[in-house]
Amino acid sequence: MNSSSLPLKFPEYHDVEEAHERIIGFIHHTPVLTSASINNILGCNINFKCENFQKVGAFKFRGAINSVFSLSESDVQKGVATHSSGNHAAALALAARIRGVPAFVVMPDNAPEIKKKAVAGYGAQITFCRPTLKDREDTLKRIVEKTGATEIHPYNNFNVIAGQGTAAKELLEEVRGLEIVMCPVGGGGLLSGTALSVKALSPATKVIACEPAGADDAFRSFYSGSIVPSVSPTTIADGLLTSLGSLNFPIIQKHVDTIVTVSEESIIEAMRMVWERMKIIIEPSSAVPLAAILEKKIEAKGKNIGIILSGGNVDLRKLPF
Amino acid sequence: MNSSSLPLKFPEYHDVEEAHERIIGFIHHTPVLTSASINNILGCNINFKCENFQKVGAFKFRGAINSVFSLSESDVQKGVATHSSGNHAAALALAARIRGVPAFVVMPDNAPEIKKKAVAGYGAQITFCRPTLKDREDTLKRIVEKTGATEIHPYNNFNVIAGQGTAAKELLEEVRGLEIVMCPVGGGGLLSGTALSVKALSPATKVIACEPAGADDAFRSFYSGSIVPSVSPTTIADGLLTSLGSLNFPIIQKHVDTIVTVSEESIIEAMRMVWERMKIIIEPSSAVPLAAILEKKIEAKGKNIGIILSGGNVDLRKLPF
Repeated sequence: MNSSSLPLKFPEYHDVEEAHERIIGFIHHTPVLTSASINNILGCNINFKCENFQKVGAFKFRGAINSVFSLSESDVQKGVATHSSGNHAAALALAARIRGVPAFVVMPDNAPEIKKKAVAGYGAQITFCRPTLKDREDTLKRIVEKTGATEIHPYNNFNVIAGQGTAAKELLEEVRGLEIVMCPVGGGGLLSGTALSVKALSPATKVIACEPAGADDAFRSFYSGSIVPSVSPTTIADGLLTSLGSLNFPIIQKHVDTIVTVSEESIIEAMRMVWERMKIIIEPSSAVPLAAILEKKIEAKGKNIGIILSGGNVDLRKLPF
Repeated sequence: MNSSSLPLKFPEYHDVEEAHERIIGFIHHTPVLTSASINNILGCNINFKCENFQKVGAFKFRGAINSVFSLSESDVQKGVATHSSGNHAAALALAARIRGVPAFVVMPDNAPEIKKKAVAGYGAQITFCRPTLKDREDTLKRIVEKTGATEIHPYNNFNVIAGQGTAAKELLEEVRGLEIVMCPVGGGGLLSGTALSVKALSPATKVIACEPAGADDAFRSFYSGSIVPSVSPTTIADGLLTSLGSLNFPIIQKHVDTIVTVSEESIIEAMRMVWERMKIIIEPSSAVPLAAILEKKIEAKGKNIGIILSGGNVDLRKLPF
């Protein structure tokens, strides 16, 4: 219900705690896995927080379910709406179904088939549009005006950020002594939530965000001090194409230590390493932090590291191997 | 050290218990996973024992490590030897390395690249041969005569069977009230060990073995009452090409309730279902029991079922999707 004329209200760590209490009965407490062979190869100790095993196959469910259950009974009855290229749409659809309210989803017509199917399978009402930001926003605006649904932005949303922060909270509660926590950055929802949790629970732990070089708007924003929009990004990591949100960026500026970029080749190599060595399926976006270690973009040797594997939704007919 | 003139000595459940004590410090206690979406689709409750997460990516490590650590100090110093198309070879190589003794492995030259690499990576001395049983046996015999190494057969071996039985033992100790336990059958090592454990720990639980229709020698052996050799089998489930062993078959006759066969299409559909819904990687052989449920070859509705996912070693460049 924020009007753009109001000052922004930023989530803090106690909002992550409240989110966790609100959603604990709905989410999977995902496992933290380690791989002796990956640790041997890379000379560090990596704790993978497996959000690929989260409901809908991605961390996005945490933010979506928190948002839907944060709405008042009267607001929520008209439904929730979003535009999303994938995981957030599926997450919001399932969250809405759990609360028994409609979900309206605007998707670009070139979204991966597996993600279209997932969103439809959770019972959302999908409107397809052309894959431009303007088209997506215009279409969503029309739907919100018509239905009275509440827009739940994929990342530039108070309750979404608080929800995403619960993954790092669980990771830090389970694994002590992490020197570094890494996650990918697209719009910054996961990264801002992660940074809130890490700096509250373990202030000395470094938060390192990782981004494809072909979609390096967060990297450029972080080091230039103002949001640089993502223009014509090209990367296999299709969850990381978006620009940083106005709520996310100040949190990232305040709490994130470093942002590094990686090549497409490293992303694919890291993805293959996880598939072959750990026998788990992760999507390219999830492989970006491990790619940064492979590329030696960070000082990892001998370190105790946490990596949030953001999701596992891939189209098995379009693998990069 | 058995001579063929001695009567066969069959493992019993207490041998599985002894094996478990012997190997517990070396193996992964693999997780049992469930999938709400697969359960919803199929109308039953399936508990997947994830041996794809076992060391070397397959249950085979259990039997191999048990065999290597069952040998006397003087016997084991000359090393161990086997012929295997893959997972057993890698398992024996790692087991030998752990005990600090040589491993000699005969592999058919058409074995999957990923399996050749794995075996070499564990430090075994590989001899390649043509992919016929006679060539494999002759080559192995030569190596055993030359080195004095002890042959560890992939499945027709007392200690291998006892080791493989520990997977089902863990499953039944963790999940109570299983009405059915299912596993794939190739040479019968996993199946005979599984049957020993299930019938000892939960006599009323049905043991159902599943086999590709294109490699149905166990099915035909079971229902004809004598071992029918596997001749020119064709299936994507490359772990299930072999004929039943003389130690395995009597245990299977005594303790297994049913053997069913499935089509290649169902195997691929089941494999895809596990990859997409559970985000874990299984090899085609592992998908055969779920394929039997998909094909309604067994009465699964409403049942509490255990399935042993035998392994997760696939060549990512040769996927059937």
